[in-house]
Amino acid sequence: MDIAYLGPPGTFTEQAVLAYLAGQPAQLYPHHSIQGTLRAVDQGKVDYAVVPVENSVEGSVGLTLDVMWNLVNLTVQAAIELPIAQALLSFSPEMSRITRVYSHAQALAQCQGWLELNLPLAQQIPSASTSEASQYLAQDYNYAAIASPRAAHLQNIPILQTAIQDYPDNRTRFWIVNRTLPNLVGERLSLAFSPRRRGPGVLMEALSLFAQRGINLTRIESRPSKKLMGEYVFFIDAEGKIPLVQEALAQLSPLTEGLRLLGCYQIRHVQG
Amino acid sequence: MDIAYLGPPGTFTEQAVLAYLAGQPAQLYPHHSIQGTLRAVDQGKVDYAVVPVENSVEGSVGLTLDVMWNLVNLTVQAAIELPIAQALLSFSPEMSRITRVYSHAQALAQCQGWLELNLPLAQQIPSASTSEASQYLAQDYNYAAIASPRAAHLQNIPILQTAIQDYPDNRTRFWIVNRTLPNLVGERLSLAFSPRRRGPGVLMEALSLFAQRGINLTRIESRPSKKLMGEYVFFIDAEGKIPLVQEALAQLSPLTEGLRLLGCYQIRHVQG
Repeated sequence: MDIAYLGPPGTFTEQAVLAYLAGQPAQLYPHHSIQGTLRAVDQGKVDYAVVPVENSVEGSVGLTLDVMWNLVNLTVQAAIELPIAQALLSFSPEMSRITRVYSHAQALAQCQGWLELNLPLAQQIPSASTSEASQYLAQDYNYAAIASPRAAHLQNIPILQTAIQDYPDNRTRFWIVNRTLPNLVGERLSLAFSPRRRGPGVLMEALSLFAQRGINLTRIESRPSKKLMGEYVFFIDAEGKIPLVQEALAQLSPLTEGLRLLGCYQIRHVQG
Repeated sequence: MDIAYLGPPGTFTEQAVLAYLAGQPAQLYPHHSIQGTLRAVDQGKVDYAVVPVENSVEGSVGLTLDVMWNLVNLTVQAAIELPIAQALLSFSPEMSRITRVYSHAQALAQCQGWLELNLPLAQQIPSASTSEASQYLAQDYNYAAIASPRAAHLQNIPILQTAIQDYPDNRTRFWIVNRTLPNLVGERLSLAFSPRRRGPGVLMEALSLFAQRGINLTRIESRPSKKLMGEYVFFIDAEGKIPLVQEALAQLSPLTEGLRLLGCYQIRHVQG
């Protein structure tokens, strides 16, 4: 089994892959971008791709939703939810000496309060990934990086402080994606549509199609259509009886210009 | 008049400030972060703060919405919408020699297609802002930055190519924020609420309160509550007759745990 994921090794996405595999053998291919990861499975270069889709603090990963909307052959097969614990990595013997903190912009944002309190004078420098950030540490012992404890372990870098994220219950959901058609089997259904008309009427009609049937919507997200300011694509997660969901989808379809069933799948919650 | 903005000088946010001022004298204070910019006005250090709130391609600026939700004394006084044209800046005589491209992650994302086509081998390196990116160019003449034509002009850096963003109609809306109470005068009303109950029912009820009164909702956005995965704060932009909007808000309030009127204001559309 070949799996593309948002790398490099040591990212939380890699941890999601390992949790999904649960010991099964597989060949892992790290990619630099979400687009690259999803394109690898779209082009048949790998069997699966794993990407982050939502964080409990930062919200949706817009790029994942946008690319899934455009690559119409891809289907969500499963979801994995992981606790996200950020650590401060450095070769420095003490925190007071730290002059720079490297990390992915989202990880810096997740630790903003802690950084302002504990390292108010350190320069914060965004990098392409949490794992890449730790590669700068050898340049200067007073540089630090925010990354996972696993990245620290893989790269043999000491951890100065664990669990520095501002919100203790920080979790990220990842999607496991491949190119088969969606099965209507699974607790969670994800769909996306671009309304035929502008304005809130279509969204309201869509929501009522689900509400009438007692289908619980666990998430509603809008993304810009990228054509006109104020034009959106809506992403909805639903939980309900499959025949009723199918009925709702059949009635939703004529209200839309495009309706994508992104997948129907189980969610695995990994504990910390 | 003292104005804090998301800097450094040369950012599109600075352009929004200049468009807002339309020649009036003011003292401008660049800040490194959206939090810092909004806190400066919250703490009374400046009269106004200017921050980006939505881009037509990338979507909402989540951090702006989150901070506005938390700093309850702040009010949106006006909005400015600017066309966003990204340029490739470099001291290199030709594009084929470029080895690295620096820019803010959002600007890199906005030019992804162009970069893959024209500079497939160049390394893409995220920086804290589009303006900071151009500061790396003196290190190596084969480095390039993506920034505004204004940043190129301010820093005396040649433009190798203009308008490299993938979506030609790329626009960003900025909010001008201060600490007065909201007036119910203006074409656009922005509000946010956290529902009292979980699930889509409250959002549907909220939408119907506006729909019944012919109030047009131009935008609906969800942001994570940061407490539990699946708990959201909703942000809504509405256009309608003020007495009817007030009626809708009065009925919405008991359905929520918190309801914030973020502002009622005019939007100025600046042409390219």
